[in-house]
Amino acid sequence: MADSLLIYMTNVKPALFTVFSPALLKQYEVKDVIVVVIDVLRATSTIATALYNGAAAVVPVEEVANCIELGKRTGGITAGERDGIIAEGLEYGNSPFEYPRNFVEGKTLVLTTTNGTKLLHMALASGAGHIITGSFPNLSAVCDYLVGKGQPVLLACAAWKDRVNLEDMLFAGAVISRIKGHFAINCDSSRIAESMFELGSKDLFAFLKERQASHYRRLAGFGMEKDLHYCLTPDLANVLPFYENEQLIVKN
Amino acid sequence: MADSLLIYMTNVKPALFTVFSPALLKQYEVKDVIVVVIDVLRATSTIATALYNGAAAVVPVEEVANCIELGKRTGGITAGERDGIIAEGLEYGNSPFEYPRNFVEGKTLVLTTTNGTKLLHMALASGAGHIITGSFPNLSAVCDYLVGKGQPVLLACAAWKDRVNLEDMLFAGAVISRIKGHFAINCDSSRIAESMFELGSKDLFAFLKERQASHYRRLAGFGMEKDLHYCLTPDLANVLPFYENEQLIVKN
Repeated sequence: MADSLLIYMTNVKPALFTVFSPALLKQYEVKDVIVVVIDVLRATSTIATALYNGAAAVVPVEEVANCIELGKRTGGITAGERDGIIAEGLEYGNSPFEYPRNFVEGKTLVLTTTNGTKLLHMALASGAGHIITGSFPNLSAVCDYLVGKGQPVLLACAAWKDRVNLEDMLFAGAVISRIKGHFAINCDSSRIAESMFELGSKDLFAFLKERQASHYRRLAGFGMEKDLHYCLTPDLANVLPFYENEQLIVKN
Repeated sequence: MADSLLIYMTNVKPALFTVFSPALLKQYEVKDVIVVVIDVLRATSTIATALYNGAAAVVPVEEVANCIELGKRTGGITAGERDGIIAEGLEYGNSPFEYPRNFVEGKTLVLTTTNGTKLLHMALASGAGHIITGSFPNLSAVCDYLVGKGQPVLLACAAWKDRVNLEDMLFAGAVISRIKGHFAINCDSSRIAESMFELGSKDLFAFLKERQASHYRRLAGFGMEKDLHYCLTPDLANVLPFYENEQLIVKN
């Protein structure tokens, strides 16, 4: 009796899926699912950092024009990039180092990025149960939350203009390698992400460099190696950004 | 002078990209590009096999109804599956073992499958320069053709209902690991496919089994382990299926 109960219980683990690109999101049911938006270089790393450093909220918006308008209306800091550099008309960029505590504490950041904020709004439009953001700087907070909730999970990579990228996959793999025991995983993408993370986990920076990841090259070309190192390091800004009332706030 | 000429020549290698799902195809320009349609389990393995065993042609069609109609009109063998089993109204399925020489020689096969034929028609609609089909049974023929042509290449995985699968990625990786010296590869998906192939290449069957690839489980559940072994073995049906005048024929 106890044995069969145990078997039953191991069969009811919540499902976990991974998508490598926003263009694949529509293949998955996201109602009652926790969607983890992943944009490692650099949107979700910067969101975690700003909130960790005391920002009141981060408001993700899709368009630069909305960002400017909302910044004016609310007095928030307008920030964001297009194609890796500060978008015209905005005050700040998408580097986590632009948001130290002595600048960002108590303030609201209105943020637009090429891929991450777009994916978040797609997940929202698809009726996602909850939306959080994930990056290496808040890896443990994400894992602890997912295990604690025990709901189905979709790890959603922001990619680069819908093209699959390596760094977001590596973060999905890092999450899976930590929490897979708590979930039922019948998803090749999740197994692939986990394998890639295992391959690269000894030195993610060297791994991206060696594999010539396209986004690594794009950012390294802009002289942002410091950002790359930071964005690949676990738990430097270990908070949980949770989407609620059109903004990301820290979930305690 | 000779040195700078050499540098120039190495810079003009044709590009090679990989897409993991038909849903990602629209992100890539395919005009003047050779598109390799990859549906390892089992459409493209069966296409190579039927042609290797002397079939006059394989006509890939999208819908079961078209398949039946065209079969009647031309006297061709109607074949295909939906969700891994023979579709209602068709004579034969999607297993390479259904098409030995003493059955298929000189005949035309009208084939419809869940993913592979759909992707081929998408590539066609996008204006692909040339379309060929790839699978482990014709790995060397594909590689030799791509190197010989020296044109840009898109390795296009048929996936499973637009969800990424491991086996198609492994074939893309096998191609890349053989021919990468001849192409300029600035594409994370290609690097990922190559890495996954390197991880699994010692025993692809064991690798799929161990990673619990979803399609492996689907087919193994139907008792098709023999098909799986065949479809993961290089060069058992080493011809080049080339799409021309609405059918796949052997390109010499």
